[in-house]
Amino acid sequence: MTNNKDLHVAVVGATGAVGMQMIQTLESTDFPLTKLTLLSSERSAGKKVMYKGQELTVEVATPDKFEGVDIALFSAGGGVSKELAPEAVKRGAIVVDNTSAFRMDENVPLVVPEVNENDLYNHNGIIANPNCSTIQMVVALEPIRKALGLSKVIVSTYQAVSGSGVAAITELKEQTKDILEGREFSPKVLPVKGDKKHYQIAFNAIPQIDKFEENGFTFEEMKMINETKKIMHLPDLHVAATCVRLPVETGHSESVYFETNQNGISAEEIRELLTTAPGVVLEDNPAEQVYPMPVNAVGKNEVFVGRIRKDLDQDNGFHMWVVSDNLLKGAAWNSVQIAQSLLKLGLVSK
Amino acid sequence: MTNNKDLHVAVVGATGAVGMQMIQTLESTDFPLTKLTLLSSERSAGKKVMYKGQELTVEVATPDKFEGVDIALFSAGGGVSKELAPEAVKRGAIVVDNTSAFRMDENVPLVVPEVNENDLYNHNGIIANPNCSTIQMVVALEPIRKALGLSKVIVSTYQAVSGSGVAAITELKEQTKDILEGREFSPKVLPVKGDKKHYQIAFNAIPQIDKFEENGFTFEEMKMINETKKIMHLPDLHVAATCVRLPVETGHSESVYFETNQNGISAEEIRELLTTAPGVVLEDNPAEQVYPMPVNAVGKNEVFVGRIRKDLDQDNGFHMWVVSDNLLKGAAWNSVQIAQSLLKLGLVSK
Repeated sequence: MTNNKDLHVAVVGATGAVGMQMIQTLESTDFPLTKLTLLSSERSAGKKVMYKGQELTVEVATPDKFEGVDIALFSAGGGVSKELAPEAVKRGAIVVDNTSAFRMDENVPLVVPEVNENDLYNHNGIIANPNCSTIQMVVALEPIRKALGLSKVIVSTYQAVSGSGVAAITELKEQTKDILEGREFSPKVLPVKGDKKHYQIAFNAIPQIDKFEENGFTFEEMKMINETKKIMHLPDLHVAATCVRLPVETGHSESVYFETNQNGISAEEIRELLTTAPGVVLEDNPAEQVYPMPVNAVGKNEVFVGRIRKDLDQDNGFHMWVVSDNLLKGAAWNSVQIAQSLLKLGLVSK
Repeated sequence: MTNNKDLHVAVVGATGAVGMQMIQTLESTDFPLTKLTLLSSERSAGKKVMYKGQELTVEVATPDKFEGVDIALFSAGGGVSKELAPEAVKRGAIVVDNTSAFRMDENVPLVVPEVNENDLYNHNGIIANPNCSTIQMVVALEPIRKALGLSKVIVSTYQAVSGSGVAAITELKEQTKDILEGREFSPKVLPVKGDKKHYQIAFNAIPQIDKFEENGFTFEEMKMINETKKIMHLPDLHVAATCVRLPVETGHSESVYFETNQNGISAEEIRELLTTAPGVVLEDNPAEQVYPMPVNAVGKNEVFVGRIRKDLDQDNGFHMWVVSDNLLKGAAWNSVQIAQSLLKLGLVSK
């Protein structure tokens, strides 16, 4: 059991879109740490970051920086995690990794605390934080699965550019200005940094997030499919995803069709299940035009659910609209929640 | 059979987003008319419009203006159609109506020429042009239905603001500028002109198009559901829709999941069916990041289809991404196509 007086936390990727949110979340939730180490690539090292009125200097992430670290939150890309997470574990840290590097590793729990907190007991040093679009969907689906079972999920996403990092946010804003002012522009970041072609995102919709797999699905779509099965412990669940990038800065939305294992259930019963569900806020009143929207979800930790309605043909089928802040519940907040759960369950040893 | 030398065409709603595209489409397709009458509300009457180098004055739409008109293209709102379409028919015109006023009337054919051109033979003076989001979907689905049958469709839409008229386009642009320049703004048009509340569309996604029905679906979603069944002559087809408005000026996109009546079909076979389909352009090469996007569809008459892939669990299930210019194939071009078909089939009598 940890003595909280001595808790040393490190954030790897401290200057990125998610890393900055991690630091803010540690501060705003008053996380019981006594030392905070901020790490980054050589390029960003030396930057100053404020934490609870104290100025911290970002240092270069190297193996020895993890000496004495109890919990290391990683969000600096899959390459960095693959290289440095094992080094952190070797030095006694528990790693909460926000990249896709270890998510499908059967020795690594993939955790959304509202869904499968107990999987943390099986960790071997590394715990994976799921993909942003997966997290918000399973938080909304889990209370339904628990009560009624779940056999099928078909999701189409409406994803914000901040999921692709700070450079993508800048690209959206600059490109939008260029278009409104009639200037030429040349896309450089989206849909995928480092892929062959780049496309206009301002006033457009791009049906590609991450690279394509052999089967025609993108890696993002396969993440949603495989991670959902793993987190929910439903290896035989039918899941399909279509992932689309939008000119939205922050806040992912999802149009989710799902089938339960029971017939004769009403939309109202689904609403009731979600009213008391952990991490969920029901925003569902069509008569008053109340439904979730990304601009309203920004800065909030919860998953917002609305537009719940029963399918007109399939008795066990329902539709819903799920929105959350992809940098918070989709990344930073879920990572900090995992760290909180680790403390709560007594899994951080000194 | 019409003598084309004497063909008199009227456009009702000539100054609206769709009306302007109708006039342009009549001109660009060299429609064989000899007289063009442009009609509008009192507010817009008197405006000058160029047609083939000639300046035409927009006149107030009144019943007597349809005297001598052979084909009247209506796109001035359901109220105007309900009032004036019967007056036009009484005076011998065939009405092609782009509003929802008569679409589900069993005496009115609802026509997408690539799908059900022959339904025109059953017209009683009025022919309805389907909803924009329905049209592009059925053009992509029809070649598949023809070859393999069709049992289920689940669609999530990504719709442009121009579907809501000129005022919505202006609102998107002005609001985007206000946000980028840090000014206050107050939404007045979207999601639905005349509904109780209005929401930010810039950098947002709004899961409401048209008003809500009792069953929790919006009217736009019910249009997609009911019109698809009627156009495709599949009253028992399972169809569900979720319709979402995006900060895109023109070009609707759709994430479509569908099930055929045959097992063992490959994505490649679906692609082949679409390669030769009328009105469809296949843009589907993931390896080269080739897929349809709204900004590329603007100004084009075709329906663009890509991201075709077989579902990973359902042998007869497939996913695709369908994009088209909602003002052209979704409205003006389909209306002019109907007029062309009426001439071709000898259905315009003098």
